[in-house]
Amino acid sequence: MAAWSERLAGVRGVLLDISGVLHDSGEGGGVPIPGSVEALARLKRSQLKVRFCTNESQKSRGDLVGLLRHMGFDISEGEVTAPAPATCLILKERGLRPHLLIHDGIRSEFAQIDTSNPNCVVIADAGESFSYQNMNKAFQVLMELDNPVLISLGKGRYYKETSGLMLDVGAYTKALEYACGIKAEVVGKPAPGYFQSALQEMGVESHEAIMIGDDIVGDVGGAQRCGMRALQVRTGKFRPSDEHHPEVKADGYVDNLAEAVDLLLKYAHQ
Amino acid sequence: MAAWSERLAGVRGVLLDISGVLHDSGEGGGVPIPGSVEALARLKRSQLKVRFCTNESQKSRGDLVGLLRHMGFDISEGEVTAPAPATCLILKERGLRPHLLIHDGIRSEFAQIDTSNPNCVVIADAGESFSYQNMNKAFQVLMELDNPVLISLGKGRYYKETSGLMLDVGAYTKALEYACGIKAEVVGKPAPGYFQSALQEMGVESHEAIMIGDDIVGDVGGAQRCGMRALQVRTGKFRPSDEHHPEVKADGYVDNLAEAVDLLLKYAHQ
Repeated sequence: MAAWSERLAGVRGVLLDISGVLHDSGEGGGVPIPGSVEALARLKRSQLKVRFCTNESQKSRGDLVGLLRHMGFDISEGEVTAPAPATCLILKERGLRPHLLIHDGIRSEFAQIDTSNPNCVVIADAGESFSYQNMNKAFQVLMELDNPVLISLGKGRYYKETSGLMLDVGAYTKALEYACGIKAEVVGKPAPGYFQSALQEMGVESHEAIMIGDDIVGDVGGAQRCGMRALQVRTGKFRPSDEHHPEVKADGYVDNLAEAVDLLLKYAHQ
Repeated sequence: MAAWSERLAGVRGVLLDISGVLHDSGEGGGVPIPGSVEALARLKRSQLKVRFCTNESQKSRGDLVGLLRHMGFDISEGEVTAPAPATCLILKERGLRPHLLIHDGIRSEFAQIDTSNPNCVVIADAGESFSYQNMNKAFQVLMELDNPVLISLGKGRYYKETSGLMLDVGAYTKALEYACGIKAEVVGKPAPGYFQSALQEMGVESHEAIMIGDDIVGDVGGAQRCGMRALQVRTGKFRPSDEHHPEVKADGYVDNLAEAVDLLLKYAHQ
């Protein structure tokens, strides 16, 4: 692999995944990953532009930012690209009235959306609300539509909570896709449009941007397909086998956000 | 399409799906499909061999047969090919100790199986037991295995209960496959080995056998890939769009089992 100086040259903007990079989510909001609070502070003091790009869909953007600030992270709502607000824009544009298969923690994001007489299903990381009854209800709504539309907030396979690995929305989206014989529209990583809107909001071109995440497929692979570079951190859901993934090779593997920031501050902008 | 006399000529054995053909399952065991009790009786009085080939995995074979007999169907346990007993044989042969993600109604079938220190997951139609907790537990067991083995009792997309369409095991199997990046082994229709064992138990070659089912993919497509003919009934989970399925074309579509039996008694054996 080329030297870090070569791999990081010309980076002007950094997109940061949140869960598994800043903190591990879990009971009571989870815990910060050691070194990440200080690393983010250093990154934000640098000349690099920073934006957060998350698939978090259990908590509203406001609640998520509140939790992170409470842990000491320097983050504000306006810096976060999150799938629920992006989905609301799409629903309004297309006149879609969703049946919502979501966690109660994110329901407030959809307060302005008409959910009467649904003509689509929106699925997010519903956690405990992924009961058989709730899945079946969403399935039945889709099967009654002539043209079933399923919008999935991300397609993550799993994430890491403090108590262990947890199934993410992507698994349940696959279940509905298979049962209905349809394909979901993904709002979130790794959908190219989602990365592009985050880049636009950051004001950086893809070839000048780098993604830092713990998901080899959703973060690293997705960002690379958009022309960005991408680092995988060995925190969160990282597993050693990710470094030998059959399809995706990160531009670098680092122990944690702190190491990524050390390298960026040393070698970016050159 | 050719005349029925041509399509049914030479049939010596009939494989019958159960749910959606004999009865619609549901509260209290469900209800017989009109005409099916009498149609089965006529079929069994004929010279045609008859066997039942089901993916039922919520009830033990004994309970299922008891329910059907109570509705008036002429059926005995020895005539039924069901996935749970077939799975137990595989588990014993390969020294597999399953974590069971199954409905309580079928737990008795696994009474003789060692489930300590699991080295695989067996998933069946768990119904209400498909909770987030239970799905997550199965996922975690698989992720801890070096060589994760997932055995799925059928891969049905959905079935019809008296209260409506219900998600079947296949949807949840897809969820685990996606989350773990693995492929399940299917014991049940449409796995070729499953049809073949049913044919062997009936003592009829595939070219002399016909499958009757309500599932265009699992019953009809699966049986045809094994060299059998197959009829789809317009009962159970049948939907009008099935008659224009992009990949599977039945050898005939009939309103119900009664019409299928009328035709078989008239044209088979010629």
